[in-house]
Amino acid sequence: MNFCSQCGEKVRFAIPEGDDRPRYLCESCGAIHYQNPRIVAGTLPVRGDRVLLCKRAISPRKGYWTLPAGYMENAETTREASARETREEAKAEVELGSLYTLIDLPHINQVYMIFLAELKSDYAAGEESLEVALFAEEEIPWQELAFPTIERTLAHFFEDRKQGHFPLHMSTITPEDRERYFGSA
Amino acid sequence: MNFCSQCGEKVRFAIPEGDDRPRYLCESCGAIHYQNPRIVAGTLPVRGDRVLLCKRAISPRKGYWTLPAGYMENAETTREASARETREEAKAEVELGSLYTLIDLPHINQVYMIFLAELKSDYAAGEESLEVALFAEEEIPWQELAFPTIERTLAHFFEDRKQGHFPLHMSTITPEDRERYFGSA
Repeated sequence: MNFCSQCGEKVRFAIPEGDDRPRYLCESCGAIHYQNPRIVAGTLPVRGDRVLLCKRAISPRKGYWTLPAGYMENAETTREASARETREEAKAEVELGSLYTLIDLPHINQVYMIFLAELKSDYAAGEESLEVALFAEEEIPWQELAFPTIERTLAHFFEDRKQGHFPLHMSTITPEDRERYFGSA
Repeated sequence: MNFCSQCGEKVRFAIPEGDDRPRYLCESCGAIHYQNPRIVAGTLPVRGDRVLLCKRAISPRKGYWTLPAGYMENAETTREASARETREEAKAEVELGSLYTLIDLPHINQVYMIFLAELKSDYAAGEESLEVALFAEEEIPWQELAFPTIERTLAHFFEDRKQGHFPLHMSTITPEDRERYFGSA
């Protein structure tokens, strides 16, 4: 951020009076520009013993497999965001179940929220996907998953499925987790 | 938003190519300025049969009672944000329990996340509070609560306490809920 989005003057990065962390400040109009984490909402769509994955058509991680998920928009709920992303990326309608994973990624200012879902329609690659397909557990391309959040959510699912009990899993992904996942490349 | 925070030129509000909703666009540098919901993280601090509430020293709803909660910051987890807000508003240390309410407020682009917590220290009014106090169920100032999210979280808590079981409650607050709550004033 270089300029004030309210008045167009240059901003500086400093701790406002009475605050304890630096913000982008406009000394011309007095605006303080706060920046906050974003929610990534998505689903784990299930049909029978298979789960739906999307091969990414866009960066980052183009060509890798993911669950349908993306940034929550203003004016929608977390459940609406999850269903919309599934519609956009997999052209699929789902019946949403419970919130299944809630994963903090503080180093990239994201909070993932993935809902269990039952696939209720046909599916096809949306604009951000190269391919959409159903995978049984033994077919999951573990080495070609796009993000550690996806790997973790799928691992919980196949483990929980043995007991038929799917509680909410909350956890944090650290930079070290991310590095282990992506390798040193 | 009037000006591009990257280059300082005027922005316009229009649907970008390939998108389906209007964004603030800079035709000078090409930046698209996305806006997303914010997370409000907080706690329901419990000591024995009483819960801790803070009387707000700031707008909105100055003078009304709330649970300690506020905007999650970049570079922290949802649990860290909840504990930090409790420390700031009630000068209290807590042992965090499970996520208890997750409430969407799409009309004001917020998602509330309140964690159960055990009060582990003394408490006192932080800078944003006029007063901090413990309340038994029959002492809760139901007519003087700051927000419908707080009323709903407390109502769930006292109901669940009868069974000693505190599952996650997910729900949505609509503009109509808000109007009923605040009245027509």
